[in-house]
Order: sequence, then C-alpha cells, then structure tokens
Amino acid sequence: MLDLEMIRAAATRLNGRVRRTELIPSHYYSERIGAPVWFKCENLQRTGSFKLRGATNFLLNQTNELLRNGVITASAGNHAQGLACAAQQEGIPATVVMPETTPLAKVLATKGYGAEIVLHGTGFDEAAVKAQQLQVEQGSLFVPAFDHPLVMAGQGTVGLEIIDQLSDIDTLMVPIGGGGLVSGIASAVKALRPGVRVIGVQAADAPSALLARRKGAPVTLAAAHSLADGIVVKRLGEQTFPLIETLVDDLVTVEEEAIAQAIVSLLEKGKLVVEGAGAVTLAALLYGRKKLASGNTVCVLSGGNLDVQTLARVVERGMLAEGRFLKVRIELQDVPGALAELAATLATLGANILHVSHDRRRADVPLGRTEVRVELETRGPEHIKDILEALPAAGFDTELEP
Amino acid sequence: MLDLEMIRAAATRLNGRVRRTELIPSHYYSERIGAPVWFKCENLQRTGSFKLRGATNFLLNQTNELLRNGVITASAGNHAQGLACAAQQEGIPATVVMPETTPLAKVLATKGYGAEIVLHGTGFDEAAVKAQQLQVEQGSLFVPAFDHPLVMAGQGTVGLEIIDQLSDIDTLMVPIGGGGLVSGIASAVKALRPGVRVIGVQAADAPSALLARRKGAPVTLAAAHSLADGIVVKRLGEQTFPLIETLVDDLVTVEEEAIAQAIVSLLEKGKLVVEGAGAVTLAALLYGRKKLASGNTVCVLSGGNLDVQTLARVVERGMLAEGRFLKVRIELQDVPGALAELAATLATLGANILHVSHDRRRADVPLGRTEVRVELETRGPEHIKDILEALPAAGFDTELEP
Repeated sequence: MLDLEMIRAAATRLNGRVRRTELIPSHYYSERIGAPVWFKCENLQRTGSFKLRGATNFLLNQTNELLRNGVITASAGNHAQGLACAAQQEGIPATVVMPETTPLAKVLATKGYGAEIVLHGTGFDEAAVKAQQLQVEQGSLFVPAFDHPLVMAGQGTVGLEIIDQLSDIDTLMVPIGGGGLVSGIASAVKALRPGVRVIGVQAADAPSALLARRKGAPVTLAAAHSLADGIVVKRLGEQTFPLIETLVDDLVTVEEEAIAQAIVSLLEKGKLVVEGAGAVTLAALLYGRKKLASGNTVCVLSGGNLDVQTLARVVERGMLAEGRFLKVRIELQDVPGALAELAATLATLGANILHVSHDRRRADVPLGRTEVRVELETRGPEHIKDILEALPAAGFDTELEP
Repeated sequence: MLDLEMIRAAATRLNGRVRRTELIPSHYYSERIGAPVWFKCENLQRTGSFKLRGATNFLLNQTNELLRNGVITASAGNHAQGLACAAQQEGIPATVVMPETTPLAKVLATKGYGAEIVLHGTGFDEAAVKAQQLQVEQGSLFVPAFDHPLVMAGQGTVGLEIIDQLSDIDTLMVPIGGGGLVSGIASAVKALRPGVRVIGVQAADAPSALLARRKGAPVTLAAAHSLADGIVVKRLGEQTFPLIETLVDDLVTVEEEAIAQAIVSLLEKGKLVVEGAGAVTLAALLYGRKKLASGNTVCVLSGGNLDVQTLARVVERGMLAEGRFLKVRIELQDVPGALAELAATLATLGANILHVSHDRRRADVPLGRTEVRVELETRGPEHIKDILEALPAAGFDTELEP
C-alpha cells in the first residue's frame, strides 16, 4: 500500500531524472477568482506531463531480471511518452502499443524517445489486448498507467514539491482520470498537511470517480469522449479508488465548453499551453457551480500535450463560447463603394472583419440591392450589442445570422 | 547615464511590484541545439511582458508634482499594458493613445488595467503625435517606451535575476526593438559577468540596430511589418544606441518563417505562449546562419502577448513551413465505396484528413471517374514522400497540388 515513505523514497530516486516543476502564482486569476491562485506546472515537466514520474519510479524499483526483456505498455497519451522517456533514460528497451487513431504528434513524440511503436486497433481496449499479447510473447514487463503503488508514489512527488514550494495551502485542485495522480498527491499532502482541502476534478462526460463514489465501488463507463482526453478513463483503479474515498474531500465535474474556455484562457492570460485534462482544475474554479477557491488555491496543470491542430480548433471554439464572434447578413445598395463604406463603418465600431462573402447573383435579393455576409471578431457580448444597434443607425439593413 | 547602481536600485524598488520570472531549462531544446538552453520567461511577467519593469521604475522615480496630472504614452503593444498596470498599482491616472488598428485583445487588456484609451490614427506615428498633443493639454507626464535611463534600468532587472538564477552563463540572447531591454540587461550582466556573450536579435524585416551599427548612428527605417511586431521600431533610441555599441557582442537577424516556426515550436515543445518578438531569440538558435549556442545559453522570451487569432494563424503557417501539410488531387472510379476505400488507405498510411472536396460535376474529368481533392496532415517531408509513393501503388491516380 501507498504511504508517505514510499513517496519520499520516490522523490529521492527521481531527483535529477524529472524536473521539479514551477509553482507559478497568477495575479490575473487571483483577482478574477477572488483568492490567491497558483499553478503547479506539470505541463512544463519533461514529456509534457507528470506521467514521467510514475513510470520512472516504477522502473527504478524493478530487478534487472524483470527488466531483461524490456518493458511494454498500451497508451494513446501521456503515459506513452512518460514511459518511453523513462525507459530511454534508464537504458531499457520499451514497446508502446497505441491505437491507430492516436494523433500523429503523440506517436512522433513517443517514437522520439526511442520506443518501438505498435499501432493497433481503433481504441484503447484493443491496444491494451495487443500489449498483453506482446508482453507474453516478448517476456517483457508491463508498466501500468496508474493502478500501482509505485506509479502512484511517483506521481505523489508532485504533492511533496507543492508543499515545499508553498507553505500555506488551503485548497488543492487535482484532475482525476484513473486516479494515480490524485492518490499520490493526496497521500503526500494529507500526511503532511491534513488541513488542506483536496478537490478532484473530472470531465462531466467521463465521471469515473464521481460514479464510483456514489456506488461505493469502481464502475465501468460506456465509451466516452472529451476534450480532456487525458482523463477519459473507463474505470477508476481498484487501488486508487479506496485512496480517493479516504483522502479526496470533494469531487466536481466540468462541462466541455468550460474545458475549452479554460484552455483558451490559459493561452491568452496564463501564457501556458495546457491540455484539456490539465485545464479542468482551472475550469472548475472559473465555471464550476460552487465557489471552490478560498485561501491559497493550487491548480495542478497536469499536462501540456495539446497538439497544435487541436489547439487551433479549440481557440476558435473558445472564442465562440466567449461570444466574441458575430455573423450578420447586410443588404447594401448595389453601387460602387457600398462595400467600402460598410467596411469603414465596421472599422469605426472597432470590429475586426474575419470573413466577407458578397454574392451579387442571389435571387432573393431585390434588384438594385446586394447582400453581404460578414463574420466579425468583437470584444464580446456587449460590443456585439453596440454593433447591432450602430449598423442600422448608419443605414445598413442588418440581420443576425445563427 | 545608466549604470549598475541604477539597476540595483530599480530591483529594490520593483520588489513586490513585478514578478521575479522563472528561468526554465529545456531538455528538448538543449538536445536539439547541442548546448544547455534556458528560457527567461518574461512572457510570464504580469501584463505578459517585461515592459512593466521599466514603466514602474520610471514612475517610482518621479515627484508627486510631476505625476499630479497623470501620465500618458503612445503604444500599440506591450508598453501600453506595462504602463497602464504600473500606473494602476501606484494609483496614478494613465492615458494611452493607441492606433485604431491595434488588435482588440491589446486594447481590452490595457483598458482592463484602468487606463483611459484614446484610439487615434492608422499607425504608431499618428498616435504618438496625438499623445504629445494630449500631454500638453492635460499637463500630464509622458512615459517613454525605451529611450530613457530609468526605463532601461527597470528592464535591466531582468539581467540581475538571470545572473542570480544561473551562476555560469556563456551566451545570452536578447531581442532588440528600440533597445531598452538589451541596454538594461547588458549593462547589468557585463558589469557583473564580463565574460558573458550578449547577442542581440532582430527581425530581418526591421533591422534598426544592425543598420545603426553599420552606419555608426541610429537610422530611420521605412515602415516595416513583422510577426515580431513588438520589436518593429523605426529607429533605435539615441541613448540605447551607444550602450548597444559598447555592450552587445553580436547582432543577428531572423526571417519571418523562422519566427513563425519558433512560435509554433515553443507552443508544441516548450508549452509556452511566446509572441514573435520574444520568440526571435530561440529562432536565432534554431534557424540562424551561424551556430550561436555554446555552454549555458539563455534566451530571453520577452513577452507572450500573442492574440489568439494570430496564434491560430501562426500555427497553420508554422505547420506549412515545417512541411507537414500535403494537398493532392486524386481520380477515383465513380462507384459507391471508392471514397471510403481512399479514406481507409490514407488511415493506414497514418495521414490525417483535414479537408476533402469531392465534385462530381467537373467537366474535365473522364466519364466514370470522379475527382477528390484532399488536404492531409502528415508527419513531415519524409512521410509525404511515403504517401506519394503508396497512393499510386494502391491504385489511386494521384497528382500533387501546389
């Protein structure tokens, strides 16, 4: 079973092998939330997430005999990179089975740490079956993603660092997928600072821990999808579950829109790239149903492996959610200069034109009139209201588009 | 004139008013560049850039008499936010004149610090004239963006922090626009560690310092544009120029594509949002003509105010530059299932389909055939080569599109 001594031992072993990541205070979010907010930046960990810690600690506690034929795991995400990097550092051959649908960036990054990649199946379950089969064939050692005391102890070193970096903590927000990170952190923190309130955060679309708490035992979820893919796990661990029940004070969930907005906000205001699974902690503070922050509040930003294509899409979605886009249809006199006049008016109103389509041939527009569809970037809902009042006042027939 | 004592005095005054930003080592870039690389993260400074330091130091050295009618400046960028925040912290009313073309995010952020915003003119020059006029009318105090010893001393505190955070520095890469940051940093660093090589980096499209060095005096550039808009300054300062001549060992420039790629790389690998002006230092290390790094190499990431729209565009551009997109035109049998077969083949090849257009009505395609245009995300040039070999081998008539 996991205890403080195991986590302390892990910290000693991991020293020099993983980064002691920054704990960054945020003036902006502290003001916005009304309590001092700190970010524990595991997105700045090597491999882009905390998973390196658990994987490294697991490897360092195995005998040479067990490691003789290398190690293997199945993962579409951060555990893949974490294990690959850990194994490379220790000079152990690693095989990672990834679903065929894994984003290229993650495949490349894992390969970049020298692991052999096997792409198999359309989802995690099939990849996991393949990994078990290969493990038997190779005689290699399977490295669990979360449900093992040595893995939890490695992740728990995040908690030791936080305590060391900030003496007075009130609330600690930790993402929960399989439960390895929160089990480790809570074990360390509750042993040393029993007064700290530990809050676990999940995606509302994959509430494995919440349902397990209600039922009193891990339950298996149907296939789930979330922007926070790193914490979409079908079933909480058998070993993490009792620790979560004992040590985690509260479990909350956040909706997809809130996750998207938190990712975008962290980019814009935090200047940090944080993946969905890492951004849920801030999402819960910003958009959660109850007020969670009080006193020094630490959000664990567990990872930053957001591939740039997703990033570009999320930015657009986040801006949409914030109500910063406006689409309007405007009828103009079909005379030279009418479009230029409209553009000038929009510039005066401070709206950025993102896209214009101007189609003279539409049949349903009266003769002598022409129609323009304009997509605008605005400062937000209030600005949109101003624009929708000002355009008709300036003589432009304006209709809001969905 | 600027000296170490002024910078030390600034550091004392700024204590508690600005963040001592993180100096973060990067394992990834150290391996890629072949020397230990560190990032001084002024993108994580309050207001998203180092400008808060100089503006605050300037204000703290003025008499109440001079500050009685508030302060004013003209800026389209980080100095606007830096001054607005500094003035708000000290309880001084501030006016900021910004060109009408300023991105909304910067206008909103500046307004968010309580400054009065005057939008005027289509560029910086017109805004500056307006600010001078308002300054006379208001009897307020003008706060220079870079060409003043108190401003340079404030920026120089970045140098003191770096020295304090890393004892053994070989090379220090600093962005140069007007020269305030590099003058301050180099003054501190050369006084305390004369052996450190200070390299100034500019956008190739706005080489104010490089041309000044060649001519022996500041020169006025024609209007310039760059992704690194924060360091597009028409003319180096009269006071920064001699310091740069004395203290900066080398001046290098980076092209726009390199800046875009460095921004994207910092997002993907560094997990940091860095604006163009801040990313030039890494761009010079990654894509510069000469090898610049040797021993501990510190890149000052001067700011992170990249608005999210620009960010989304840069990501696309950066991926293009990296050769990760592929557009092909493919002729198919016009039978049910042909497109599904193509999609399956592309999946096997590990290519992500970003966009498909399928137009049955094209006149130039033979009867019984149909044409599909596909845009793919790939792993890079080598993967593209594989795909272009594999598609014809699988029976698909493939033509590369520009």
